[in-house]
Amino acid sequence: MATLAGVSVGTASKALSGNGRMRPETRQRVLDAVQALDFRPNPQAQSLHTGRSWTVGLMTTDGIGRFSTPVLLGAEDALGAGKISVLLCDTRGDQIREQHHLGNLMDRRVDGIIVTGRRTDPRPPLTGVREIPVVYALSPSTDPADTSVVSDERHGCQLAVDYLLGSGRTRIAHVTGPAHHAAASDRARFTTSLLQQASLELSTGRVHFGDWSEAWGRRAADAVLRAAPDTDAIFCGNDQIARGVTDTLRERGVPVPEQVAVVGYDNWDTMTLAARPPLTTIDVDLVEIGRIAALRLLEAIDTNPSPGLHQVPCRLVVRESA
Amino acid sequence: MATLAGVSVGTASKALSGNGRMRPETRQRVLDAVQALDFRPNPQAQSLHTGRSWTVGLMTTDGIGRFSTPVLLGAEDALGAGKISVLLCDTRGDQIREQHHLGNLMDRRVDGIIVTGRRTDPRPPLTGVREIPVVYALSPSTDPADTSVVSDERHGCQLAVDYLLGSGRTRIAHVTGPAHHAAASDRARFTTSLLQQASLELSTGRVHFGDWSEAWGRRAADAVLRAAPDTDAIFCGNDQIARGVTDTLRERGVPVPEQVAVVGYDNWDTMTLAARPPLTTIDVDLVEIGRIAALRLLEAIDTNPSPGLHQVPCRLVVRESA
Repeated sequence: MATLAGVSVGTASKALSGNGRMRPETRQRVLDAVQALDFRPNPQAQSLHTGRSWTVGLMTTDGIGRFSTPVLLGAEDALGAGKISVLLCDTRGDQIREQHHLGNLMDRRVDGIIVTGRRTDPRPPLTGVREIPVVYALSPSTDPADTSVVSDERHGCQLAVDYLLGSGRTRIAHVTGPAHHAAASDRARFTTSLLQQASLELSTGRVHFGDWSEAWGRRAADAVLRAAPDTDAIFCGNDQIARGVTDTLRERGVPVPEQVAVVGYDNWDTMTLAARPPLTTIDVDLVEIGRIAALRLLEAIDTNPSPGLHQVPCRLVVRESA
Repeated sequence: MATLAGVSVGTASKALSGNGRMRPETRQRVLDAVQALDFRPNPQAQSLHTGRSWTVGLMTTDGIGRFSTPVLLGAEDALGAGKISVLLCDTRGDQIREQHHLGNLMDRRVDGIIVTGRRTDPRPPLTGVREIPVVYALSPSTDPADTSVVSDERHGCQLAVDYLLGSGRTRIAHVTGPAHHAAASDRARFTTSLLQQASLELSTGRVHFGDWSEAWGRRAADAVLRAAPDTDAIFCGNDQIARGVTDTLRERGVPVPEQVAVVGYDNWDTMTLAARPPLTTIDVDLVEIGRIAALRLLEAIDTNPSPGLHQVPCRLVVRESA
C-alpha cells in the first residue's frame, strides 16, 4: 500500500493513524491507496512501529496433557479476550525442540512467554530469552527471581485433612504416587505435618508411595487394611489412586464412607464421577493458574513484573466418598 | 533499522537478502545499521514483502479436550518442525468467540486455518475467511467442497466386527452413546450392516443407545444379559462404556473374555489399562488426523488444495478383554 501511494511505511502509518504532520495531498494519496487495496490494518506492519507484536508464546514442556490443557485454556482465555494472539509450542521435554521453538518465538518478537508442564517439580529457567518476560505456570522455575504461578499444595492438603478431622476421622492413611515426584512428596510431607499438628500420625505409620494408577490404589488399599485395620480414612495423592482404593474397599465389603472415608486429589471428573461412590476430592484450579499466569505476564509486559512464587488456593469438592 | 539507515523498508530488505540492485554505499548503510541495532531478521517485516506470515491458525470449536488435544499435537508437530508458527484459538462453541478469533487471525494474515472439535458431527464451514485455505480435522465441514480429514468410522467398526467374528463370536451386542451424536449413530449403523453382511443380527435385536459414561455401560450390560443371556460379545461405542460393561460382567460372575468378549473404541489408555481385564479397543489415530490435516493445509497454501473428505484408517489394539 505504501508502495502504491509512493510513500514510506512510516508516512503511510502516520496518515492512517492521524498522528504526525504531513501535507494534505500525501495523506490523500495514502487514503486512496487504502481504498484501492481494500486495506485492513495489518498488525505485522503496526508492530514494526509500536515495538510490540501483540503475541505471546505458550510453551508446554512435556506434551499437552490433562494438566497443561486447562492451564492453556485459562491463559488463552485471559489473553485472547483482548487483541493478543497465542503462539502454541509443544517441546515434549526435548531440549532441542525447546531451543527450536524458543528461536522461533524470539524471531517473531513475542511480547512474553508462558511456560507450563505436567509436573509440579521445579524446572530450570528458559535460557536465551534476553529481556522478554517469562511466567512459569504449574511447573515453577528453579530461579526464585522468576515469576511462577503454582498450586498451593499445602492448602490442598489442609482442606483434605481438616475435612476428615472435622468429620471425626483420626486413623488416616495416605496413599500417593512416586516419591521422586514433587506432587507426591510435597503432599505426603504436608499431610504428615498437618496430622502432627493435631497430635496424630498416619494410621499405617508411613506414607504409601507407588504410582499414579488405579491398579496401585487397588493394591495399596489391601496393604492399608492389612497394616491398620482400624483405618477410618484414606487420603489419596490423586483421583485415580482414590478410585482404585474405593474399588478394593467395596470388593472387601468395607462400606465407603461409613467405615472408611476416601478423599482424592485433582477433581478429574472422569474419575470422580465414575467411582463408586463418587469421590470427594481437592480441586487444583488449573484454569485459574493459567489465567493468573497470563495476567502476571501482561503486567510484566507493561514493565510491572511480580517476581517470585504465586500460589493459587485449592477447593474442596464434597461428593459421597467422604 | 530502515529509519536508522535512512532508507525504505524495501531497500533495507533488498540489502539484507542480497536481492535487487542498489548502490554499494546504500547496502553498506543498511549493514552498518544492522550491526548498530543487533538486528535479527524479523519475520513480521519479511512477511510484508513475501505476502506470507508463516503462521497458521489452529481453532478448536468446543474446548481443548481429550479428542482435540492429540489432533492439535499432530498438527503442531507437522507445522512447527518447519518455520511455521501456530496461533491457538479456542472458541468453545460460541459463535461470537469464533468471529472474534477469526477476525484476529485474518488481521494477522495467517496463511491458513485448521479447525477441529470434539465431535465427529459435521459443522458449518467458517464464514468470512475469503481466500484463506481452511482444513477441518475430526469434525468435517458440511460443505463437501471443503477439505476435511476425519476418522474412517466404518473401518473402525469393521476391525472390531471382523476380529469378533474371526474369534468365533456370533451373538454380538452393541452399546453406545447418544443416538444424536454422529459417533454413536455412525458406529451403530456400520456395525449393524457389517453383521448383516455376515448374515447375523445384533444379539439383543437393537442398538443400546445411552450416553458415553461408565455408569451407562454398567447399566447397559445388565440390560444385555437380561435381553439375550447367550450374548458372547459386546462391542462398545467408547472405552468408558466398555469399562462399565466389564465391571458389571465381573460383578455378575460372567468371565471376560471367556464367556463374553468386550471391545471398546478410542484406545484411551486411562480407561483401557485400568479396566479389568484391560480393554481390546479401536485406536482412532487422532495424532495422524492432525498431522494429515496440517499436510493438506500446507499443500493448499502452496495452491494445491485437495477438496473433499479424507478418511484416516483405525487400528485394532488387542489386549485381554477380547
